[in-house]
Amino acid sequence: MPDLAREIAQDILERLRRSKVQVPLGISNRHVHLSQAHWDLLFGRGSQPSKLRQLRQPGYYACHETVGVEGPKGRLDALRVIAPHRPKTQVELARTDAFSLGLEAPVAGSGKLEGAAPVKIYGPKGSIEVAEGLIIPMRHLHLSPEEGKALGLKTGDMVRMRAGIGGPRELVFEDVLVRVSSEFALELHVDSDEANAAWLKNGDFVHIT
Amino acid sequence: MPDLAREIAQDILERLRRSKVQVPLGISNRHVHLSQAHWDLLFGRGSQPSKLRQLRQPGYYACHETVGVEGPKGRLDALRVIAPHRPKTQVELARTDAFSLGLEAPVAGSGKLEGAAPVKIYGPKGSIEVAEGLIIPMRHLHLSPEEGKALGLKTGDMVRMRAGIGGPRELVFEDVLVRVSSEFALELHVDSDEANAAWLKNGDFVHIT
Repeated sequence: MPDLAREIAQDILERLRRSKVQVPLGISNRHVHLSQAHWDLLFGRGSQPSKLRQLRQPGYYACHETVGVEGPKGRLDALRVIAPHRPKTQVELARTDAFSLGLEAPVAGSGKLEGAAPVKIYGPKGSIEVAEGLIIPMRHLHLSPEEGKALGLKTGDMVRMRAGIGGPRELVFEDVLVRVSSEFALELHVDSDEANAAWLKNGDFVHIT
Repeated sequence: MPDLAREIAQDILERLRRSKVQVPLGISNRHVHLSQAHWDLLFGRGSQPSKLRQLRQPGYYACHETVGVEGPKGRLDALRVIAPHRPKTQVELARTDAFSLGLEAPVAGSGKLEGAAPVKIYGPKGSIEVAEGLIIPMRHLHLSPEEGKALGLKTGDMVRMRAGIGGPRELVFEDVLVRVSSEFALELHVDSDEANAAWLKNGDFVHIT
């Protein structure tokens, strides 16, 4: 068999193998990460976030505390605060939510706030304006190092994911960013617009394709 | 060339030809069609809908009049009424909107209201409860008979559509229903969740693939 044919055959086999892996879906609902300084302004210096439930990502938890966010066209309330605090405040919304506020925000990976949209945040003790604070989270595939090795995937790779098989809105997400970390477990993260477009719910299985 | 190989080659050429057609996108925003009897209850017998703007689909227009819709978890206001009236009342929302009302509704083609979700509708003169009134519109490709002929497509065919090329969220919609009518012009209709998932706006070009 010539080299090219062998390469193509190997690629097909590799893809078939990956496509059999059931990847659970996790939907990113709208939420907020706060810096310590912004927490102090919104909830009062000395107050502490109170844990509501553990998140899948180790160490992070959703808090009982919520905030409101506002743009030129509207306001959304009851956005969950995620703790522990981060170096920079970051609001993550679906594009549908951002439009309802009258805001256009870029798709960005967590922490990539250059070019993020300006947003006002309201808490029980005060409000803040964050010049670069609002992003639409970029979909991505979490893998543990073991899973990455087994699938031949590393951080920064791009894969295609097929979602909603058997449902009324099957689709294929192109360019899904791979992230490998010992803190991660196999899971595709999409936002609520992407989940609703493919008619998915949390825990549904999707496939690398 | 054996028959199978010829068939495959022809299929590839046909697909390549189709994929070069630029199909403009039309986003279905949430809206309501009313029956005459329901219009009378909501806006008052004898009143007439007042035209705001023509829609692409010949004969239909968006009205100045709007209604509110309500479910167990919330309410949405300012839903545009589309006229002329239809035999049956039909509310069309994105799944994100339906969830915000606390309602689960099926994906359905226009007029296919069996199994549609119950919904309350409010107008300036009264309110109604529609037992089977709420659907999530099924994405579909409109073609004129000439366009259908040129592309080898007829009503009921299913195609795949690639959307968002060059953007941050390219994806492929599987199972897009084809509808051919002398009242239609080439256009893919998706709802706002699907448009936002693929990072699209009205008039963007998508492709049969």
